[in-house]
Amino acid sequence: MNQTFKKLEEEYLQKGQALSMALVVLEWDQATEAPKEANENTSKMIGVLSDLYFHAYINDEVKDMMKEIKQEQDTLDEREASIFRELELLYEELETIPPKEYAEYAELTALSTNIWQKAKEEKDFSKFAHTLERLINYKKKFANYRKKEDGKTSYDILLGDFEPGFDEKKFDDFFAVIKKELVPFIQEINEKAKNVEKSFNFKSFDVEKQKEFCHFIAEYIGFDFNKGVIKESAHPFTTNLHNKDVRITNHFYENNLESAIFSVIHEAGHAIYEMQVADELTLTLAGTGTSMGVHESQSRLYENIIGRSEAFWKPIYPKLVESFKEQLKDVSLKQFVQAINKPECGLIRTEADELTYSLHILIRYEIEKLLFEEKIKVSDIPSVWKEKYENYLGVTPTDAAKGELQDIHWAGGDFGYFPSYALGSAIGAQIYYYMKEKMPFDAYLAEGNLKPIQEFLKENIHKFGKTKKTNQILFDMTGEEFNPMYYVKYLKEKYRMLYEG
Amino acid sequence: MNQTFKKLEEEYLQKGQALSMALVVLEWDQATEAPKEANENTSKMIGVLSDLYFHAYINDEVKDMMKEIKQEQDTLDEREASIFRELELLYEELETIPPKEYAEYAELTALSTNIWQKAKEEKDFSKFAHTLERLINYKKKFANYRKKEDGKTSYDILLGDFEPGFDEKKFDDFFAVIKKELVPFIQEINEKAKNVEKSFNFKSFDVEKQKEFCHFIAEYIGFDFNKGVIKESAHPFTTNLHNKDVRITNHFYENNLESAIFSVIHEAGHAIYEMQVADELTLTLAGTGTSMGVHESQSRLYENIIGRSEAFWKPIYPKLVESFKEQLKDVSLKQFVQAINKPECGLIRTEADELTYSLHILIRYEIEKLLFEEKIKVSDIPSVWKEKYENYLGVTPTDAAKGELQDIHWAGGDFGYFPSYALGSAIGAQIYYYMKEKMPFDAYLAEGNLKPIQEFLKENIHKFGKTKKTNQILFDMTGEEFNPMYYVKYLKEKYRMLYEG
Repeated sequence: MNQTFKKLEEEYLQKGQALSMALVVLEWDQATEAPKEANENTSKMIGVLSDLYFHAYINDEVKDMMKEIKQEQDTLDEREASIFRELELLYEELETIPPKEYAEYAELTALSTNIWQKAKEEKDFSKFAHTLERLINYKKKFANYRKKEDGKTSYDILLGDFEPGFDEKKFDDFFAVIKKELVPFIQEINEKAKNVEKSFNFKSFDVEKQKEFCHFIAEYIGFDFNKGVIKESAHPFTTNLHNKDVRITNHFYENNLESAIFSVIHEAGHAIYEMQVADELTLTLAGTGTSMGVHESQSRLYENIIGRSEAFWKPIYPKLVESFKEQLKDVSLKQFVQAINKPECGLIRTEADELTYSLHILIRYEIEKLLFEEKIKVSDIPSVWKEKYENYLGVTPTDAAKGELQDIHWAGGDFGYFPSYALGSAIGAQIYYYMKEKMPFDAYLAEGNLKPIQEFLKENIHKFGKTKKTNQILFDMTGEEFNPMYYVKYLKEKYRMLYEG
Repeated sequence: MNQTFKKLEEEYLQKGQALSMALVVLEWDQATEAPKEANENTSKMIGVLSDLYFHAYINDEVKDMMKEIKQEQDTLDEREASIFRELELLYEELETIPPKEYAEYAELTALSTNIWQKAKEEKDFSKFAHTLERLINYKKKFANYRKKEDGKTSYDILLGDFEPGFDEKKFDDFFAVIKKELVPFIQEINEKAKNVEKSFNFKSFDVEKQKEFCHFIAEYIGFDFNKGVIKESAHPFTTNLHNKDVRITNHFYENNLESAIFSVIHEAGHAIYEMQVADELTLTLAGTGTSMGVHESQSRLYENIIGRSEAFWKPIYPKLVESFKEQLKDVSLKQFVQAINKPECGLIRTEADELTYSLHILIRYEIEKLLFEEKIKVSDIPSVWKEKYENYLGVTPTDAAKGELQDIHWAGGDFGYFPSYALGSAIGAQIYYYMKEKMPFDAYLAEGNLKPIQEFLKENIHKFGKTKKTNQILFDMTGEEFNPMYYVKYLKEKYRMLYEG
């Protein structure tokens, strides 16, 4: 136990944690609960709180203590060392930003989600364009403040915030594999699966019954309602105050049975990660998921690898049929599993199947690169979006809500986030193959016994919070760093089995 | 515009406001939404935020600026002067409390509501007693730090926090009038009303339909859902982030039609007050209701004087019957109005009729006095409670949940709050007689036109926030300070009309 660190943690870092928690709960509240007209006043106060958050970490006292601790760094225990490293990263990220700009930016992001939501409702990109431009300009400016190493691009820096250790080069390599291996494979499978029937999942489904089933399935996979809450919002998301208060949202469409079910499994995957972070780490800088990619590996492992497998549905499909007898009574388990995996080139990322999903990400990755390299302007987004969807997926957006306004991420200033979805899918596959070696994975699913899987993820990933980074987690667990070939292998095996058998 | 004040407001007071808003939203969240196991971690962080809140106001820079402003006080405009006065009051309240104790107390109150709730569920006062004792000790200690004027009791100070300008002496006088005038009158009316039928309001009422009707009636009286939210909690309450985000809770019982309806009218009365505070005052120290008594005058004006009158129900009673046909089809408007006003000596304050209500308050007032004068101990509360209910109301608590654990207030450290309910009822009556002079009050109600009443309250009370104190509001409006005889007059007229006609 380092005494200076102890003082730092009790007298300073706690304040940052408390302010961060307040901001989390306000953001959650704005998305799920606050009345329409509240936004302007509340955003102003969120700006003030963000400024306080900033200064809780970035101030001369903390800086002096950090210098002191740095000199006696070898006396830090493991927990302290991890928190200290996160503090250094935070300094690297925040210290260069003038506080006034940081507060302005925070106030802007508090308003921008509402502006995006309205623009989306009105299917009018121009109503969001100016806000988006401001967000991008702030992000560019902030990234430029931080550029130290030669050759680092602004976008490299943003990518690294979500996925420490990964940059444009690494993502370019990753997406090159995806393109090379999967684009031809998608065409092959699309052809084979084209006659698979799935219209039964798009009949009319009572929303209250959907909610009940989603509640059931969240609990079934391990979401603990004593430590969590599920509500509704425009776009499903997960957030957490700490490891005993983790919250997810869902959305419901009457004519789509798949959307809510796979959204809730996805978000519950994120939530289980946060719920299983060790008690001694929660409410510290090292107390949440280690990176977006690893987070997405968990959500997409649950959503796709587990949640779209036949073994998973074997024990619970009868319950689903029971809930929606009229619509599903003539649909066999096999037909249902073929339906929920059917590859289709669509417009909406969150509704995409596992195979085409990475192309949706690729498009966003390429557009973000173009924006940050200043090769296109914000006003070009709609036409570039259209062109890329036509080229990669052969579909044309019918309106902005089904096109460039579909995702909440940019409205929150989250540029560089999307690639981690694809990375997460690939990490998930790598973990999956390792788990299959270590336990009777499919047999557990078929028995309805998901606890050993949850426990394994806790012991190998979740409990560490940010104390281990992506490649370290993979290496310590599997003996190998990130390798995208497992993802290719997984998709090829799975889809061949599904539609060639 | 005073330049020092401007700096004070922008650089310091805004922080206090933002932290206060964060604490409000966390408190709301804990009461309505947070998962079970969240409380401990979250409370710890609430303690840290409360400490930040404390220091946002109480620090040397603010103190120095206050000294400077004090010397040029005549250059402050009206808005600035009001905010400055509230800041001085805050200093008077907080400055004497050692910050560590303040943070400990805040952490305790964040935990204590849960402890109270569990004790109430288990009907076991002993499970709350230790926490209550700690709360009282903090409150005594804090009040003692502030005792400056000779002869002021601790309880005087707590009473004054909720109702500036009022102390034990004034409340003793007020309750003496209540006792002298109302105790015999209650007996007289109880006798006359004893055969009034009201069992139809305690049949089985679908909770979803109750919720719908409560939503309707809240909007009907003026609750603006674009600026407000209604949810459920153990005990109904009102809170607000600012004038465009005001929130109330309600609770529903299947076998009680009256409870939810009059709770929602009561809380909506509070909410309308907060929604109508002027825009230039909201998010400042002067930007909420002026005192608990005036707040209760608004909630109880809406709940009782308006909400339990025949004129109010005339246009909407058919809608209620429509919602609950089976239960109410044979009940006339007159029978319904007699039923919702029927005086009955019961155990539960929030379920009490207008006439016996002030006796419930009297009991709490007397017990609080005894506790703060150290004439009884916390462990004596159950027996004193029982004794007083038997003496004043002739009823014996069946268990702690229906006795000393029924109210949330003490769990939040709110000692000295209860008397303002009775005071508020009396202020409400005084305002009512003035409004009847100035507008066709009953005719508006009978037409279903509540807007002029809401507008009148806005112009004479709400918009001023804390810039006018209780007696000043009454004097500026009616030409007279607080006078309890209007309350006596109102109750006698109303109840004689109802049950002697």
